[in-house]
Amino acid sequence: MKKRLDLAAFRDGILSGSRVVLGQAITLVESALDSDQELAAELIQSLMSHTGRAIRIGITGVPGVGKSTFIEAFGKMLLEKEKKVAVLAIDPSSQLTKGSILGDKTRMESLASDKRAFIRPSASGGTLGGVSGKTSEAMLLCEAAGFDVILVETVGVGQSETAVKNMVDYFLLLMLAGAGDELQGIKKGIMEMADALVIHKADGENLPSAKKAKASYQNALHLFPSSPKDWSPKVSLASSLSGLGLEETWREVLRYEYQMKESGFWESNRARQRINWLDEQIHYLLGQAFLRDSKVKQTMDHEMENVRTGILNPGTLAKKLVSLFLSTERPQ
Amino acid sequence: MKKRLDLAAFRDGILSGSRVVLGQAITLVESALDSDQELAAELIQSLMSHTGRAIRIGITGVPGVGKSTFIEAFGKMLLEKEKKVAVLAIDPSSQLTKGSILGDKTRMESLASDKRAFIRPSASGGTLGGVSGKTSEAMLLCEAAGFDVILVETVGVGQSETAVKNMVDYFLLLMLAGAGDELQGIKKGIMEMADALVIHKADGENLPSAKKAKASYQNALHLFPSSPKDWSPKVSLASSLSGLGLEETWREVLRYEYQMKESGFWESNRARQRINWLDEQIHYLLGQAFLRDSKVKQTMDHEMENVRTGILNPGTLAKKLVSLFLSTERPQ
Repeated sequence: MKKRLDLAAFRDGILSGSRVVLGQAITLVESALDSDQELAAELIQSLMSHTGRAIRIGITGVPGVGKSTFIEAFGKMLLEKEKKVAVLAIDPSSQLTKGSILGDKTRMESLASDKRAFIRPSASGGTLGGVSGKTSEAMLLCEAAGFDVILVETVGVGQSETAVKNMVDYFLLLMLAGAGDELQGIKKGIMEMADALVIHKADGENLPSAKKAKASYQNALHLFPSSPKDWSPKVSLASSLSGLGLEETWREVLRYEYQMKESGFWESNRARQRINWLDEQIHYLLGQAFLRDSKVKQTMDHEMENVRTGILNPGTLAKKLVSLFLSTERPQ
Repeated sequence: MKKRLDLAAFRDGILSGSRVVLGQAITLVESALDSDQELAAELIQSLMSHTGRAIRIGITGVPGVGKSTFIEAFGKMLLEKEKKVAVLAIDPSSQLTKGSILGDKTRMESLASDKRAFIRPSASGGTLGGVSGKTSEAMLLCEAAGFDVILVETVGVGQSETAVKNMVDYFLLLMLAGAGDELQGIKKGIMEMADALVIHKADGENLPSAKKAKASYQNALHLFPSSPKDWSPKVSLASSLSGLGLEETWREVLRYEYQMKESGFWESNRARQRINWLDEQIHYLLGQAFLRDSKVKQTMDHEMENVRTGILNPGTLAKKLVSLFLSTERPQ
């Protein structure tokens, strides 16, 4: 087995932009070992002053919308503009390669082969709290390694959109033109989170229906209450085949960056996200310690069925378990 | 100051259906004193076998939709059917009487004056986790006191709808007919949670537009994916002035109860809710103990600004705080 790098080697490797060391550092962050966790925390802390300069873009959409092909095409366009691009994914439910962005080796192949790009599949499995904390830290490492644009792809469904929204500057929703997709595929709450709607696969015989969908989404968005940050999301068309809309999508990102930095929202939003991240990680770590406690585990195994059937008041068991947990003596 | 009742007196009073004792018991549940909390837990536990027989109905809708007048009219109709009705409210954001259901003394006056009804304003202030736990326990006490129907009103906005959905059998959404209300007032996610949509104030000159709104909501609901419990929410009209739709609303509740008890969903849903309630209360109590810890508090005060500004990695501080918390020695 390979010897693990030490703090200085990790740090120097990342600051010099080594994709290999960056990959190893993210593995360290994802490791469940206490010693790895400690080193990871030290490493990230030592790099904090080199973080925060990238534009963080979240990308979501229903399965089949073509997130990977869009990211590949969009990423390559950014490389042509001399931007270094990192792609991360968040997938709380992922089991092995199922749905993970490198599950299919041919996906993003040409982006992955470029030295100015870095692609990382999602941290495997785990709860949302754990996975989103790891993805946030992977993002900081990418920034320290000099990447200018971080694309965070939501792979899981459900709550992962909120998790990604909470860690990015700009949230892009990919949609498809087509009957009923509006309500059936995507939750309305997701549309309300978006800073931009992009109707993907707007090419060939899809083009006319994509244009129609654009108009109707734009109408729907007008009915939403205006956001406190004073930004009206635009709907645009894009095609990863023809390249339509990729430049326009990027220009919108830059327009957003400019406007939000002017208004102060950019930084206040990041400050809010950091506090939220702290809060989430505290809950996650407390929950982990709680579930590992042997007295808690024993009582839970014993009483859970009584809660389920309504014999035992959930509030009563919660109090009992928490006081058991707090009374556990732990090595200092 | 009045002497506090003991466990037996509380228990007997509640089982005999005393509204006065019930009110005092809910006050006990809401008390922040440790000794009150202990007695409350004992009391509820001693009553568990007398709980669970009521129909629990959540009622939500935007401010101005007429939740209180609907609940009063609906509640009085239920009293005429020899049902005992309890009304609770959940309002995580309530400050004193602002928005609380007894803030305006004239609201629900005639329902409140009936001996077969019990109306309780929301527990004051506090976080959602705290307030929803207390409301759930108040609900159990009402059931032990013999109430057949529990109406839980959402007073706050935002997350309180999910909290109520998680504690009731049936979730009723009140709507208003009118331009654009569909998207502006209510989040689409709420519509997806509803077991029934009732267009309120369907009287006088509102009636034609209410009928139109009914058709369009019914259409919108058809586009939602069908729920795993195999229930298609109906849209109906109601007026608290004319009494229109009140009987129909109740018949729908009974039809739902019958169908869900047949399919087993009723009980499996409650089992799921109890586990969810346990989980929520554990997180809430852990969070409370955490924030009360003096070492945690000190470090947090000191480091929070560094997290906010991006100097300190949130994950690093979370780990540090949680290990400080776990190393605190506590009296057994």
